[in-house]
Amino acid sequence: MDMTTSAESLLVAARRLISDYAYAIDNGEISRWPAFFTDPCSYRITTRENEAMQMPLSIMLCDSQAMLYDRVEAIERANIFEPHYYRHMLADTRILKRRPRGVTAETGFLCVRTMLDGAMNVFAAGRYLDDILVQGDDCLFRSRTVILDSSQVDTLIAIPL
Amino acid sequence: MDMTTSAESLLVAARRLISDYAYAIDNGEISRWPAFFTDPCSYRITTRENEAMQMPLSIMLCDSQAMLYDRVEAIERANIFEPHYYRHMLADTRILKRRPRGVTAETGFLCVRTMLDGAMNVFAAGRYLDDILVQGDDCLFRSRTVILDSSQVDTLIAIPL
Amino acid sequence: MDMTTSAESLLVAARRLISDYAYAIDNGEISRWPAFFTDPCSYRITTRENEAMQMPLSIMLCDSQAMLYDRVEAIERANIFEPHYYRHMLADTRILKRRPRGVTAETGFLCVRTMLDGAMNVFAAGRYLDDILVQGDDCLFRSRTVILDSSQVDTLIAIPL
Repeated sequence: MDMTTSAESLLVAARRLISDYAYAIDNGEISRWPAFFTDPCSYRITTRENEAMQMPLSIMLCDSQAMLYDRVEAIERANIFEPHYYRHMLADTRILKRRPRGVTAETGFLCVRTMLDGAMNVFAAGRYLDDILVQGDDCLFRSRTVILDSSQVDTLIAIPL
Repeated sequence: MDMTTSAESLLVAARRLISDYAYAIDNGEISRWPAFFTDPCSYRITTRENEAMQMPLSIMLCDSQAMLYDRVEAIERANIFEPHYYRHMLADTRILKRRPRGVTAETGFLCVRTMLDGAMNVFAAGRYLDDILVQGDDCLFRSRTVILDSSQVDTLIAIPL
Repeated sequence: MDMTTSAESLLVAARRLISDYAYAIDNGEISRWPAFFTDPCSYRITTRENEAMQMPLSIMLCDSQAMLYDRVEAIERANIFEPHYYRHMLADTRILKRRPRGVTAETGFLCVRTMLDGAMNVFAAGRYLDDILVQGDDCLFRSRTVILDSSQVDTLIAIPL
């Protein structure tokens, strides 16, 4: 990242990563999921309650490409039995901090799940806290923390959020 | 469309059309609906499953202004009996292809329905696949395909999505 | 506001206010809520039905900083007994009118509520009608009207929308 990169272009680049990630999942391209992260990386799902108490508890934690790919494989097997679709909606992305070669950003989200029998429900709501590596137009998640509003979470979160 | 039109201004113009369309429906201005399309046109509602199998099945299909206006008339009659409101939320719009005098774009959406008795539910989720004619600041849908995540659809979709 | 301020920069400034307001509420910073308004101000919750009939009925009405702060205090007391979280999603903001030192803007929204037991539901949908004071990069609500799609509203709306 050029030190002269404008705040606006940083926001546009970070937002495109965040939006592309959601489309990849929603459009069923789960195998592309790991490619959104650096290696090593941090992908973590936690709850608002844990986060507020600064508890390190995680519902899910992956810290390398290998772990992300393991997860993809598990999902692809699981999906044979119980297919369902996600649809993410994103709030505006806010840049919280500029960092060397990147930004820390916050993005509210909700996720609607559609089951094969047609049942639809709001499955998850919360916010992403992201540390994003920006290299020119290319962005990757160094760290993505999914902070769920609910503390009662389906223990089996098949598809990544 | 000037061949030198920037990608960014194309996206802004396309997004305004997509957003205005949603507001027209959500604000109850159904009679304005046909004016968002060219004539002839294509307005089609299908399911993700049909689309993935490249099946030409449609839940709804209109290919001219006349058909769109017939639809409006039917809705205005139907609404006398069972009024309800829609509220669309849109994901970021992505330009998939630049075309002569326009773009192909993709936009995730969800739609919440509020019934007169106050019941609210997520009524539909999916994505729009649009072929948009861009003429300066004016845009129109040459073709809009609504691809629903659910295969179990209310057979009576009164208001257009 | 400089009379030469571009329509685009006005929209960006207004949108930031509207987005920041939603994040303040969703992130639990209710005590910051009054600071988004001028003094005097107007904060009003009404229904689509009332608005269409031009009825002045309000579900909630505050017209000064003092009233907003009273509301915050009531919420903070109430939350001891029944905590829950909101998550707002916003449609694109549309500028309806440029005014002296500001704009009138419209923004569709929906709000998901998560209860402590994990129950999640779409709690409210509708649109904001805002009269926004723009002073350089600083924006404040002179007036915010929350127009709910539903006429059947929880009489106890604890957290502001």
